[in-house]
Amino acid sequence: MQTKEPASLCDLNEPLIDHSEGQHFLNETFKIIMEEVLRKGTDIKEKVCEWKEPEELALLLDLELRATGEPRHRLLQRVKDVAKYSIKTSHPRFFNQQYGGVDYHSLAGRFLTEALNTNLFTYEVAPVFVLMETEVLRGLRQLVGWTEGDGIFCPGGSTSNMYAMNLARYRLFPEVKSQGLWGLPQLTVFTSPESHYSVKKGAAYLGLGTDNVILVKGAVPFLVSCTSGTTVQGAFDPLDHIADVCQKHKLWMHVDAAWGGSVLFSKQHRHLMKGVDRANSVAWNPHKMLVAGLQCSVLLLQDTTNLLKQCHSANATYLFQQDKFYDVNLDIGDKSVQCSRKVDCLKLWLMWKAVGSDGLAERVDRAFIHIRYLVEQMKKREGFHILGEPEFVNVCFWYIPPSLRGKEGNADYQDRLAKVAPVIKERMMKQGTMMVGYQPLGNRVNFFRVIVFSPLVSQKDMDFFLNEIERLGNDL
Amino acid sequence: MQTKEPASLCDLNEPLIDHSEGQHFLNETFKIIMEEVLRKGTDIKEKVCEWKEPEELALLLDLELRATGEPRHRLLQRVKDVAKYSIKTSHPRFFNQQYGGVDYHSLAGRFLTEALNTNLFTYEVAPVFVLMETEVLRGLRQLVGWTEGDGIFCPGGSTSNMYAMNLARYRLFPEVKSQGLWGLPQLTVFTSPESHYSVKKGAAYLGLGTDNVILVKGAVPFLVSCTSGTTVQGAFDPLDHIADVCQKHKLWMHVDAAWGGSVLFSKQHRHLMKGVDRANSVAWNPHKMLVAGLQCSVLLLQDTTNLLKQCHSANATYLFQQDKFYDVNLDIGDKSVQCSRKVDCLKLWLMWKAVGSDGLAERVDRAFIHIRYLVEQMKKREGFHILGEPEFVNVCFWYIPPSLRGKEGNADYQDRLAKVAPVIKERMMKQGTMMVGYQPLGNRVNFFRVIVFSPLVSQKDMDFFLNEIERLGNDL
Repeated sequence: MQTKEPASLCDLNEPLIDHSEGQHFLNETFKIIMEEVLRKGTDIKEKVCEWKEPEELALLLDLELRATGEPRHRLLQRVKDVAKYSIKTSHPRFFNQQYGGVDYHSLAGRFLTEALNTNLFTYEVAPVFVLMETEVLRGLRQLVGWTEGDGIFCPGGSTSNMYAMNLARYRLFPEVKSQGLWGLPQLTVFTSPESHYSVKKGAAYLGLGTDNVILVKGAVPFLVSCTSGTTVQGAFDPLDHIADVCQKHKLWMHVDAAWGGSVLFSKQHRHLMKGVDRANSVAWNPHKMLVAGLQCSVLLLQDTTNLLKQCHSANATYLFQQDKFYDVNLDIGDKSVQCSRKVDCLKLWLMWKAVGSDGLAERVDRAFIHIRYLVEQMKKREGFHILGEPEFVNVCFWYIPPSLRGKEGNADYQDRLAKVAPVIKERMMKQGTMMVGYQPLGNRVNFFRVIVFSPLVSQKDMDFFLNEIERLGNDL
Repeated sequence: MQTKEPASLCDLNEPLIDHSEGQHFLNETFKIIMEEVLRKGTDIKEKVCEWKEPEELALLLDLELRATGEPRHRLLQRVKDVAKYSIKTSHPRFFNQQYGGVDYHSLAGRFLTEALNTNLFTYEVAPVFVLMETEVLRGLRQLVGWTEGDGIFCPGGSTSNMYAMNLARYRLFPEVKSQGLWGLPQLTVFTSPESHYSVKKGAAYLGLGTDNVILVKGAVPFLVSCTSGTTVQGAFDPLDHIADVCQKHKLWMHVDAAWGGSVLFSKQHRHLMKGVDRANSVAWNPHKMLVAGLQCSVLLLQDTTNLLKQCHSANATYLFQQDKFYDVNLDIGDKSVQCSRKVDCLKLWLMWKAVGSDGLAERVDRAFIHIRYLVEQMKKREGFHILGEPEFVNVCFWYIPPSLRGKEGNADYQDRLAKVAPVIKERMMKQGTMMVGYQPLGNRVNFFRVIVFSPLVSQKDMDFFLNEIERLGNDL
């Protein structure tokens, strides 16, 4: 709301913003968030989503931006509407993606981050967060098994993976930074077909080309991108074995552990990433399994030669003056290809302080227990057919409705099965009872992928999940 | 705080998180934010910064991450400490960077964004924000002068600039996506020496090489990157003139208006970007002059051929299923090189709804008025020497202490002048009275760059600024 008259242009000794009105609005918004997003949004008696067709939703939201401002009550209604029609990602029955749930300490850290509005490029403007980011990276590196090294928070796991790719080629051919790729031999990346699509996106973006993500004869391999926790099936590459090969051929070994990295907290499950300490770099997204909130993604490096800065620096004198009155090595901004960079460490740090490494380990262990229970129950029910024993907290399964059971031999079986998941999905969205994703993979037709990791989820929700799939798909 | 016993691993029917304790903590944190960050942090009687040497600060913050969690009172003390030792970027005397100030409506939008924890890649998980981002981009494109087109929010202006670079080369040589740069002629980027360093960072990252940011004979120019509002001096390239050249040679014309773009809101000042409607792409950061909060950065495109998606897509089937029950064109995630992507539109949208385009225009106009006043006052004072008449809201100036006045002819004059700004800066930081940046540029030794745009700034703060520079530098 524009509380000042246009005449305020002349009243140059008053700020353009009314603090008291602004703080009141913020207070009211906070109450709406507490009630709509955090209380109702996590209540299993409430809906996960309030489905509207795009045209209808656009009308309801009245999104158009106009010349004049609006009064407080209308703006608060807008806040309520945004909350109402947004997906409740914290809801115990949001199984749709690898983020979800809520941690209140992390969320407190996120609010504080937003209010402080800090840009993480120099110590002078970000003293607390330069030191904090360093400490959080150290804590994560320790879990990888490194006593020294480097690292950086990135805007998402795709960026972390691209950074690793850029560092690997720079280490091999430092002239690439100034001269580009033209003078270099053709470079290739080895990765598995199940690796995340960001490897291909990165190859395209960095000028390498997606064709070079597979082996090309005569080309120079420079990077092996392993996956710890594939997106769909949650599979872990055998890191120790790959490390042997990388060591022999002097290849940069990158581990995309965006999804799976959090197993490192668990004494019981960290064996899934045995050999990770032999990697050159690890990408890990605490915004996924650890519920740190979007975004919280790190690239960890074993390197101690300041490769990150050498590779990415532009040495802008307006930002990174060398004649400062403190140690300019604390001005970490030039390690990034970003200029402005959000603070993503505080939320993880505060949550970690709150529950300790032990508390985070417990969450990981509990997720595995839930998954084990879920798989056991699926095996007891006739309509559930899992694609394979899960290694991690993804369970991929087909729901076979009664009409299709025992019809595996029929010519149209696969076609009919492929149509089951989309219909169940449509029904659950429109009823708002839960959310879970589906996809085809290779020659396997549409199957569901349920992911369980939110600390808000309990065993009751596993039972609900199975009953709900049956309820929604029984007549298909 | 870990409120559950380890035995909770067995109590699988209870969530691992205590909502009541968590919401209490969030409430207490909100109160601290209101008091420490928003009330004290914007009060001119309070400090802008509380300087500590890094070693001392690290001790004060006790950053180490441990196995066990901490009790509520200690965690709340940590929230207070983080607030206390962080720079108050909303303070009216924070002139250090191109972000700063606070808008309460935007901040409310940011809190809501964090609480909703939405990932902006499909309509199914982000219905409100897919539509809202589209509408905000449309509103911004209208200001550029385009009735249609495309665009995307990026994690910062550097990324927006790199996207433009990637799109431009893809338009010229679509095979670059699959085959990489090797088969292509050497490509070069034209830009001015004062352009932002992200142009060079982007050239390195995308495999083009920083050497190709200047003209190389025999090479193929593919992109002209103009600047609207240079980082240090706030200069505007003559877009209409450059557009003539780009048109003639069929070059992609990109306008890096990360800093200057907000003049488009102002009837009085939008002439600075005359010709912007002839560009192919525009990068614009509303987190700068519009105070939308970090980060809020857009890339706007005139293109209507879906180039963004063609160039960046990986068509991941687990995310972008084609057999959904709604129009899959609403799944905009594949336009980005990111996978997870934060919602950055809500804060801008809510602020825009609150004050209207007219309110935002007023802020821009007022910033120009403050700057004009500041420059007039500088001319009246003996110690201030501006580097040139400002085009925008940056003022670059030397402060000449009494001991150096009239000594311009002395052999050591430049050396002594170069040392003035760093000492004044050190003093203001240690006293915490205000913050402003300095830098050398070309053959010009260290000078201050003061930037005025925060809606919290009033003319009194301009007077304070000048008096404070004199007070801090008078004896040098």
